[in-house]
Parts: sequence; C-alpha cells; structure tokens
Amino acid sequence: MSRLVGRTGVVVRNIQRAEPALIDELTRYGVATVHEAQGRKGLLASGIRPVQQEVAMSGSAVTVLVAPGDNWMFHVAVEQCQPGDVLVVAPSSPCTDGFFGDLLATSLQARGVRGLIIDAGVRDTKTLREMGFHVWSRAVHAQGTIKETLGSVNLPVVCAGQLVYPGDVVLADDDGVVVVRRDELSQVVESSRQRAGLEEQKRLRLAAGELGLDIYAMRERLAEKGLKYYDTLEQLED
Amino acid sequence: MSRLVGRTGVVVRNIQRAEPALIDELTRYGVATVHEAQGRKGLLASGIRPVQQEVAMSGSAVTVLVAPGDNWMFHVAVEQCQPGDVLVVAPSSPCTDGFFGDLLATSLQARGVRGLIIDAGVRDTKTLREMGFHVWSRAVHAQGTIKETLGSVNLPVVCAGQLVYPGDVVLADDDGVVVVRRDELSQVVESSRQRAGLEEQKRLRLAAGELGLDIYAMRERLAEKGLKYYDTLEQLED
Amino acid sequence: MSRLVGRTGVVVRNIQRAEPALIDELTRYGVATVHEAQGRKGLLASGIRPVQQEVAMSGSAVTVLVAPGDNWMFHVAVEQCQPGDVLVVAPSSPCTDGFFGDLLATSLQARGVRGLIIDAGVRDTKTLREMGFHVWSRAVHAQGTIKETLGSVNLPVVCAGQLVYPGDVVLADDDGVVVVRRDELSQVVESSRQRAGLEEQKRLRLAAGELGLDIYAMRERLAEKGLKYYDTLEQLED
Amino acid sequence: MSRLVGRTGVVVRNIQRAEPALIDELTRYGVATVHEAQGRKGLLASGIRPVQQEVAMSGSAVTVLVAPGDNWMFHVAVEQCQPGDVLVVAPSSPCTDGFFGDLLATSLQARGVRGLIIDAGVRDTKTLREMGFHVWSRAVHAQGTIKETLGSVNLPVVCAGQLVYPGDVVLADDDGVVVVRRDELSQVVESSRQRAGLEEQKRLRLAAGELGLDIYAMRERLAEKGLKYYDTLEQLED
Amino acid sequence: MSRLVGRTGVVVRNIQRAEPALIDELTRYGVATVHEAQGRKGLLASGIRPVQQEVAMSGSAVTVLVAPGDNWMFHVAVEQCQPGDVLVVAPSSPCTDGFFGDLLATSLQARGVRGLIIDAGVRDTKTLREMGFHVWSRAVHAQGTIKETLGSVNLPVVCAGQLVYPGDVVLADDDGVVVVRRDELSQVVESSRQRAGLEEQKRLRLAAGELGLDIYAMRERLAEKGLKYYDTLEQLED
Amino acid sequence: MSRLVGRTGVVVRNIQRAEPALIDELTRYGVATVHEAQGRKGLLASGIRPVQQEVAMSGSAVTVLVAPGDNWMFHVAVEQCQPGDVLVVAPSSPCTDGFFGDLLATSLQARGVRGLIIDAGVRDTKTLREMGFHVWSRAVHAQGTIKETLGSVNLPVVCAGQLVYPGDVVLADDDGVVVVRRDELSQVVESSRQRAGLEEQKRLRLAAGELGLDIYAMRERLAEKGLKYYDTLEQLED
Repeated sequence: MSRLVGRTGVVVRNIQRAEPALIDELTRYGVATVHEAQGRKGLLASGIRPVQQEVAMSGSAVTVLVAPGDNWMFHVAVEQCQPGDVLVVAPSSPCTDGFFGDLLATSLQARGVRGLIIDAGVRDTKTLREMGFHVWSRAVHAQGTIKETLGSVNLPVVCAGQLVYPGDVVLADDDGVVVVRRDELSQVVESSRQRAGLEEQKRLRLAAGELGLDIYAMRERLAEKGLKYYDTLEQLED
Repeated sequence: MSRLVGRTGVVVRNIQRAEPALIDELTRYGVATVHEAQGRKGLLASGIRPVQQEVAMSGSAVTVLVAPGDNWMFHVAVEQCQPGDVLVVAPSSPCTDGFFGDLLATSLQARGVRGLIIDAGVRDTKTLREMGFHVWSRAVHAQGTIKETLGSVNLPVVCAGQLVYPGDVVLADDDGVVVVRRDELSQVVESSRQRAGLEEQKRLRLAAGELGLDIYAMRERLAEKGLKYYDTLEQLED
Repeated sequence: MSRLVGRTGVVVRNIQRAEPALIDELTRYGVATVHEAQGRKGLLASGIRPVQQEVAMSGSAVTVLVAPGDNWMFHVAVEQCQPGDVLVVAPSSPCTDGFFGDLLATSLQARGVRGLIIDAGVRDTKTLREMGFHVWSRAVHAQGTIKETLGSVNLPVVCAGQLVYPGDVVLADDDGVVVVRRDELSQVVESSRQRAGLEEQKRLRLAAGELGLDIYAMRERLAEKGLKYYDTLEQLED
Repeated sequence: MSRLVGRTGVVVRNIQRAEPALIDELTRYGVATVHEAQGRKGLLASGIRPVQQEVAMSGSAVTVLVAPGDNWMFHVAVEQCQPGDVLVVAPSSPCTDGFFGDLLATSLQARGVRGLIIDAGVRDTKTLREMGFHVWSRAVHAQGTIKETLGSVNLPVVCAGQLVYPGDVVLADDDGVVVVRRDELSQVVESSRQRAGLEEQKRLRLAAGELGLDIYAMRERLAEKGLKYYDTLEQLED
Repeated sequence: MSRLVGRTGVVVRNIQRAEPALIDELTRYGVATVHEAQGRKGLLASGIRPVQQEVAMSGSAVTVLVAPGDNWMFHVAVEQCQPGDVLVVAPSSPCTDGFFGDLLATSLQARGVRGLIIDAGVRDTKTLREMGFHVWSRAVHAQGTIKETLGSVNLPVVCAGQLVYPGDVVLADDDGVVVVRRDELSQVVESSRQRAGLEEQKRLRLAAGELGLDIYAMRERLAEKGLKYYDTLEQLED
Repeated sequence: MSRLVGRTGVVVRNIQRAEPALIDELTRYGVATVHEAQGRKGLLASGIRPVQQEVAMSGSAVTVLVAPGDNWMFHVAVEQCQPGDVLVVAPSSPCTDGFFGDLLATSLQARGVRGLIIDAGVRDTKTLREMGFHVWSRAVHAQGTIKETLGSVNLPVVCAGQLVYPGDVVLADDDGVVVVRRDELSQVVESSRQRAGLEEQKRLRLAAGELGLDIYAMRERLAEKGLKYYDTLEQLED
C-alpha cells in the first residue's frame, strides 16, 4: 500500500472502520495515556493544536490529500463520510491557508462527522466552536483557497509526521492527536484500560503523599548512576 | 504617497475616516467573508492573533510606526485618535517586546478607541481583557520598551505584510485581521452582504444534507481533471 | 557558584527561601510591573506560555536540570519540595516532549507545590487545569519521556534565557514569567508597591482624558528630536 | 507493513535493494526533476538542508528510528549497511541534538555508505566535508547524545514528512531530498530521462529568446481566465 | 495607487525605470550603507537570504504577485522584462514551494534580467549558481508549482514586509535586500557616496587604533546617562 | 555574582584571563570534543551560526549586554579589549537587527580581538569575511541600530542560553560555540587531549572496518534491552 502515499486523482469509496464502542472508549483515557499504551507511537507533531478547549474526540479517519491552497478535495471527501468519522487532512506541501470554514463544517456535521484534524489552517473558528464541530489544526488563517487541483480521498497520508490509513482511529484532546491502527484498536483499548487503572492507583498513593521515588523504587538505581545528595550548595563549592 | 512608507519624525493630524455605519456593519460578516468579498486581498499575516476570544471589532486605522523596543509614538498617537478608531502599529524591524499595556489602553479607551492591531508584543493581557480593550498582536511579552526614538503617526505603514493607510478600515476577529481601503468600503460592505446572504442559503442546503459536489456542480469538472473512484484500496493495488 | 551551572548527578537538600508574605505580595503587581520595578531584568523568553488563563502565581524556585526526553529528575525533585515552592525546569538541550503530566502534578500538589515553570513540553493539560495546578511551558505535547539519565536538583539553571538560583522567587501570570533574586526580594517588592501606586494615579488621570504627552511632559523633547506635525498627508507630499 | 512504523526493538537484516546503475543515474537529473517525474510525491520537508554544497548523492535507504537525544541505533545500523547505502534517520520526537559526527562517518565510510539523511542535528561538519561523507540534516549542533534507548533499523520510518521504506532509493542535492519507491525506480528513471530531454530542448529555445508564453501556448488560457494588459499604471487608476 | 496592491488579473506593460548608471553605482556601497543613507527604510525582512555568496546586484524591479504554489505569472512577467531588470516576487499567502528554477532563469537571462528576489522558495540552486543568475529567496525547496491562478505583473506588491513599486530599484547582497524608490534614487546615491566616503575615513582612523568613543565623542553623553566604570567585579559586589 | 546578570550602566575594566597557550590549544579539538570533555555543558543554542566556514577560533570573553536595537555598548567595549579577546554579546530582549559591521570590526581588529559571538544580527558579512574577522551570530540583517541606551561591559551575561562570565574562554567552529569556565580550562584541555587521543585510536579501528558494536561492547546490553534481529520484514509481519 506504500506506493499509494502521495498519489493524486483517486477516491476510495469503501473503507473498513473499527468497532464504534471501542473507538468511543478511547476518549476516556486521553491522548497521553493511549500514546503510552500503544508503545509511544502514532503521535502527531506538537504544532497541531485544538481550536477549542476541554474537548476530547475520537473517530474513524477519512483521509484527504490536498494541494497547497486548494480545498477542492474536501467537497469530494464529504460524500465518503459516515457518522462517527473524522476528516484527517494533509497538504502535499506546507501551507497555513484557511482550507476549512463553517460551510464545510455544516455539510460534514449533516453527515455525522465529528471533527477535523488538519496539518494546515482553518477559519470561521468562532462559528466552529458555536456549532460544536471540533477542529485541530496547524494554524488559524482567514486566507481562503481555490478549487483547481486534484488530491485524493481515502489513500494513506502522512499528516503532521504520522502515517494515517483510512479507517485508522484518531483520538484528539487538549494534549494533541494520536492515531491508532484499526487492527490494533482492541489491544490498545485493553492496554489503555489497564494503564488507566494503574494510574488511578498511583494517583491515590501520590495524593496521599507517597513519593514516586519509593513507589517506583528508584532510589537504588539513581545511586548506581551516581546521584549524590549534598546538604547545601556551599558544600559543593568547597 | 508611496515615498512616505518608512519615513519618521512626522505626525499627520487630520485623516479622512469612512462612514461609521458601514464600518460597524463589517463585524456582522467577519474577516473570512470580508476578505473574500474584496477579492482576497488585505489579510494580515496569520502570526497576528487575538489576546481575547469570541470578539469581532472594526474601526478606522490610526497608523503608527515605532522603532523596535520603543513605544514613544504611542503617546503621540493617542492625541490623534477619535471615538471609533483602532490603532494599527508596525515596528520598523521585527520585535516581540511588550510595547503596550493597561495604562496606554486606559488612555485610548478614554478617547473612545476600540482596540489595537500590532505586529509586535503587548503585556498586561489579563487587565486588557477585563477592561474590554481588544488587542490583536504577534506576541505577549512583559518586556517593556523605552522612549528615545521617533517614528510616525498617520503615515502609511506595512503591518504584518499588508499596506495600511491612515483612515483605512480594519476588521478583526478570531480568524485574524483584514484591512479595507477607505474608498472601497461601501462596495466591500455591499459584496459582503450579498456573500453572507448566499452563504446562508448554502448553509441551509448543506445542513439539510445536500452535497457541495451537487450544489456547486463539481462532478463533471472533477471527472475532466481525471478523478477516479475505486471501491476499495485493494482494487488500486492490483 | 557559576561552575555549577550544567553540572549533573547532584541534589542539594537545603535551600534558603525568601519570606512567604513578600513572595505572595508579588502576585498583586504582576509580571510586567515587577520586571520594571527590578530594572528590567529577569524576564524569561516569551516562548514560555501559561497552560491556563487569568492566573497569577509566585513561589520559591526548586530548580531542576533534565536531559532531553528524560523526566527522571522530577521524581527526585518532589522530595526536595516544600509548601509554597514552584518547580523551575530546564532541559540541557531544546526539547518539546511532554515531561510532565497529572501524576507528577498530584505528587507535587500533595507537598504543597504551587506550580511548574518549564522550558519544554507538558501533557494532561485539561486535568492540570481541573486540579488547579498551574503550569507555564514552551509546548504542550503528549510525547512521553524516559528515566535513564541524571540531571540535577537545586543547582542554578538557565531557564528560557534566565539564570535561576534555587530559592529565587518566580512570579508568573498571563504575561509570562519573571525571576527575582532571593536577596533582592524585599527591595523589589518595595519598588513594585511604589510603582503600582504611581501607576494607579496615572491610570486615574489617563481615564479622565489627560494625555500622556502632558502627564509625562514629552512635548518639548519630541520637538527637540525633530517631530513635525502636518495637517494632512497632502501637505507632506508637496 | 503499516503497523511497523514507530515500532522499536527491531533490526531487519536483509532488505531488497534496487539496481545500482539506475540508482546512480538519478543523480544526473537532480531532485527537482525526479520529484516532478514521479508525479510530485516523495519530497522531504524543506527544513532538511545539505551540510556541503554542490553535491548530488543517491543510494539505497537503510532506515533508522532513534529516540530523541539517543544515537545508540546508529551503531546497530552500521552493521546492516552495504556499499551504496544511505542512512535515513528519523527521531521519534523532534530533536536538534548532534546525533552524528566524524567517528560514525568513518565507520560508515569504511562500509561503503555514501551519506546520511537525518531529521535531526549533526556535528563535526568541517571534518565530514573533508572526508567527503555527505550529509543532509535539520540542524548542526555540537550537543551530543546518549546510548540508552532502543529504536529500530530497517523498519519503515516517517522522515521529514515522508514515509521511507528500507531499500527505497533516496536522491539528495542542493535542492533537498526525494525518496523513490524501490519498485517504481525504473519507471521514475525512464520518466526523468524523458523529462530531462524535454527540458534540454526547452532550455535551448528559451536561451534563444523564445518565450514560455509561446512555447507552452499559454496566451489563450490566460485571456480566458481574464488576464488584462494595460499600457501604464495610470490607465488602471482611471 | 494604493488600491492596486493585491489586485489580480492585471499586467502593466510600460514602467518607468531609473538611470542605469545610478542603479549600477549602488552595488559599490552595499545594502547596509544604502539602507542607512536613505534614512533606514526599505529593508526586506531578514528571512530573505542569498542562494549564492559574495554577490552584489542591483536593478529595476519588475513586480510579480503570485498565488501560493502557482508560478504561472512568472511566464507572463518574462515578456515584460528588459536588460537590467530584477524580478521581485511576492506570494499572496506564505508559501515555501520552489516557484522558480533553471528554465525560467534561462528565459530571464536571455532577456538580460539580472536576478530574482522572492518571498518564497526556489529550486535548481546549483544550476542557478553555475549560470550566474542571482537569487535571494525565503527558502530552497524542490516542490514544484502549478499554473492555474492569475496574479499580477507590475502592480505594487508587499514583498517580505516592504512595499515595492514597479520601476523601484532593488539592491541585494550578502546582508539582504533593500528597495529604493525610483524618484529618490539620485538623492540616495548621493547620500551613499558621502556616507561611504566618511566611513572610509573612519575606517582608517579605527584601523590606526583610535577609539570610536573618541572619534564620535561619546564619553560625555555616556557619563550623563550614568555609565560607571569599576576596576574589578569584586568592587561591584561590595 | 548572580545579582549582576542583567544589570546595566556598568563597565568593569579589569578581568582575569586564562593562559593563552591553553586557550589556543582548544581549537585543535573542536567544539564537539571540548563540549564532551567538560561533561556536556556550556554549549550555546544551535541558532548561533558562523558567518564564515571552516574556521575555528578561541579567546577570552569580553562580555557585553546591549539593549535591543542599540549597539552603543560595543563602542564602550572596544576600549576594554586586549589581543586574544572575543566579544560575547547578548541583547536584553530578542532582536535580529544588525548590531555589528565592518567599522566596529576594524576597530576590534586594531586591538587584536579575534572575533564576535552575538545572540542577535550582524551586517557587512562579505567585508567581515574578507577582513578575516570571525563572527558567529543568530542572524544576518542590514537593519542598523541606534545609540541611546546603556547596557554593560564585563558583567556575566546569558548568551544563547549559556551563562558567560568575563574572562571565560569561548571556542567556536562550524558546529557552534561552547564556553569553558576560566578556572576549569586547564582541566578541560587535559580531558580534551585525552579524548582526542582516544578518538584517533577509535577512528583508525573504525576506518579499518571494526564495528562500534564490538569496540564499545554493545551487543550484550542491546540484547538485554530487548533488541531482536529478523532476517526479513516479512518475518515480522507474520
């Protein structure tokens, strides 16, 4: 499938999606935990930031490749979307133009799409927040786009440094965006559950004043590495 | 007038301003729509961001050129302001210092000035929000400035990539800032009205589930450009 | 003490802290005023931004040097903290990884630590806001870290361009972060008080419509520097 | 193979390489031409710049995933290299540390490796130029790295925004770096040949003073799009 | 003329150019001196860097506005060029694509054009250097462009923060690029001559060991501002 | 001495310098080696780049703090310089203006100063290269500066993230800049000598084809950490 990355002029109609209940469950754990739970992979670059705050969203990726400054393929993509989907959009070269605004959001919302992840710019952000259509983007810019050049829909894309396949699951919150392979989802959800459980236990112990140094038994290894304690700065300078 | 860009040591007292009702009407349409309505020109660079959220503001530009790290000309500019004005400030070389804070805002507010657009830094942002004095800036930084070097007031300036004349109209919201030439305002307002009307109709159709592909009759042109649909990724790989 | 900057493998247990009442008083004045009051020094680079809004915090610096992508020393630092402290963390080379999240925040909060200043990334920002644990950072990124390399605790560090000694006082608000030397605190608080008083008087005069040009008696000096007033742009072009 | 992106703790010993004569031929055409010839895909981000000038290099990718600030996997990768290879290195999170210097270059050169493409920093650049070991990197920084964390060798990686498979062909020159899929190489070389031939013909006509407007028959389409010619600026302003 | 900035679909055929001997003379003085000589205005942003080194170039600006990722207007511009011209190109929104390469350079060189100033990317840089076609750009990137959207030729543009009119004179060297208004050229050349003469005298005195403190008689003013000399750091700490 | 960082209005006349032979010896080893030899500390941020290539320089730091856009203190600093010194300049807030050009270089060269390290911009770079006056800077920009505000000479400064004391030794080459504390110089030179000797031995072994895996005995520890070898990618996917 690798040779399909970057190819244009193609729309794929049918993609496989993961189990809805599992997709939804991801939002309980959050990006940081899920990223750890799947072995620290799949995290989009930190330049992708939410347009709203305090929102967590997950969904099935409908992938879109666009030319810089050209949002034609969004219109093509809308028709391929189903309830529960999230649009994942990558430009073929870096661009901060505002590819997306409230009209496209209205159209996507009418089809049940949950939000947008885009390695480029968006606009109409106030309206997007009012509509409850959730967006993570690299920029906010009112600069509009044209409709002249083909891209692709539902081919694998590299978005903000991560390879995303159509049907992969994306999870986004205030910390950023992570992609989970469709066929790894159940396993990642299971790991996330366990991890979240363990974290809850640790949280209680830490809140009670126990030290991570003791909970994680770090003291010995720190000493082996050569960590030395001094009572005062002055001792060190002698 | 071109030779005046960048000149220092000059204050112009009388500038022509556009019709207040038209200036105010711009806020109904927003930066993205107005930018389109005037033929996609006049948009400031996307690095200029609001200090507050969910606010739209328009006004007549009082233009200020400042030396990097020197806010002396703000004090000169205050005297030239009238109710309904907006200060548009450009540094003569890039600088993120905090040129502007709550005292200057108090003084401007006392004269009826609505806000500030600055291609540099500001400070006291919490107080600015509490005062309802609206600011769009390149940076937030507590680093203060000095008062040693002359700039200019009410000469044309290049601010965040756009040429702004004194008396031009600026519109700013969560999407950024756009400048409208004073003598083009009535025409731009008229186009914006029409555009907003058309957008509202499209929004209703899109919300009802119609596709942009059909509303905008894009299917034929996409096919001409060579767009191909496949049922599955597997078909493509054969 | 200079030779200690950048040294690793060291923890200093006892640091001197400034007087709590003075530390707390700083939050009344804010970063911009305190920075001016101590002669425009000690301001961290403007890339360090708050994770929450409308919060001012001050405290005694517990300094931490970490290796890039390695948060081991946070766990060591927790044990050295007291109520009223603030963690000030510098990586030994630039890194936007998420070194810090809600578990560490829980542990620090259990010891009465007020917040974190870090020239690197953090994660779990929604939870941090809910907990009321305040953070200023260079980035938000879910990318986690490892625990393999020693840094230091309570040695002087350079954080976002400023030298910070353990026990120095840090003040942070929406405008950024400033560091005040421990032994200069009482003098800086005194200057800040006076400055705030003067600012309040100026604010009242400015709000009443007096001009800074007159309050600060700037007109003569501006004229000496050569500032010229023209009635219209056209006069200038002749 | 997609699930392998980002996985760590793995070395793949045998990779398939493309035909050496075709790999070498790429350098005749250059990155810009080859990128066009394969349909404008595969270009690494423009932040990847050569450490030397006026050099073109091609080779078979040996891919390496490294942890930020940790160059351990370079040593593992050397053993997997053959004459004609190029190391393609991606960090699992952004990092400008100097992962690579003259000792590693000596070791790679001893195995016939031609150069390095790295989305991170390098050091010893003067010696690298003297050795004739060619490098394209995101940064030059003397900051060294540690050897604590596993990455991978010869799994697919995303490097500077492009997916690279082990055995893919990379071409680098002063314009940047492009990756060609191994199984598309012969076809890309053929297209590049034709393109280069056509370009040579165009160059001769352009050098003789013919206009692109005529050679490419653009005048009619420009007129259709609405391009208007005016004799002077003044005509426009009337 | 201001309303023409940003307008598209227009080509102006005849522009006025400055006197060739004066244009050429600028290269003797260099960008830094000419920028000072015209009162510190007209300097393009520092992100515009030369593709070659140790070259100074001046010429009459033929201005071009292009859409992001679209170099169609270059072909239109070539026909409007005369010997001694320099192309000055601004994109209507930020873009680092490689708009320009060796074929366009061949065509421009055939018409006697001296070089290119572009607030975007270029490619084929090795060939450009070999051809002796000089370029200052914001980026080097092999990413090509399309030919779909109209811009303009010979309207005023804002390029890298500076307003440039067709027929203005641009001077570029290793320090950057400065624009001189056509009708101010003779006066700027005269000031540059004088300035260069004075600088030569100062250089001789400085080379002979005289101090700027004495040549510029700074000591008194420094003392007035409060500069204090101490023999050792220790004195200060008492 | 900490309270002196950031203080202005002060010049210190006498500073202690390290032994010239040791200072000069540093250039044999280079920045990367010396940085390792002193325990990976003292490296300036990677944004500081040389204006020339293939040059290594060392010297005693004469430290200068300047206001943004104001180079007055350079003239004050010249008088404090001796043969073998290097000017180390930090602005009190970020600035890319061209603080320094050929006239100041002439004056410094007349006093035997070797070069300049500056966390800001410079100009006249072509002439600086011709003069053989070596410069490492954050930017090249023709934008000049004024002479209105005091800074300091020979107080400790934070330059590009590192604390530098007057009389500290700076070493700069194509890889960047490192600072060595004056009283640690002899020890750092000794470590650098040993390190360079060891590196030479390793280089010979690596050039002969030995693997780092064996020279550094890494295989066992890699296996312990869990590194697995597979013959082909296909094996992994099963």
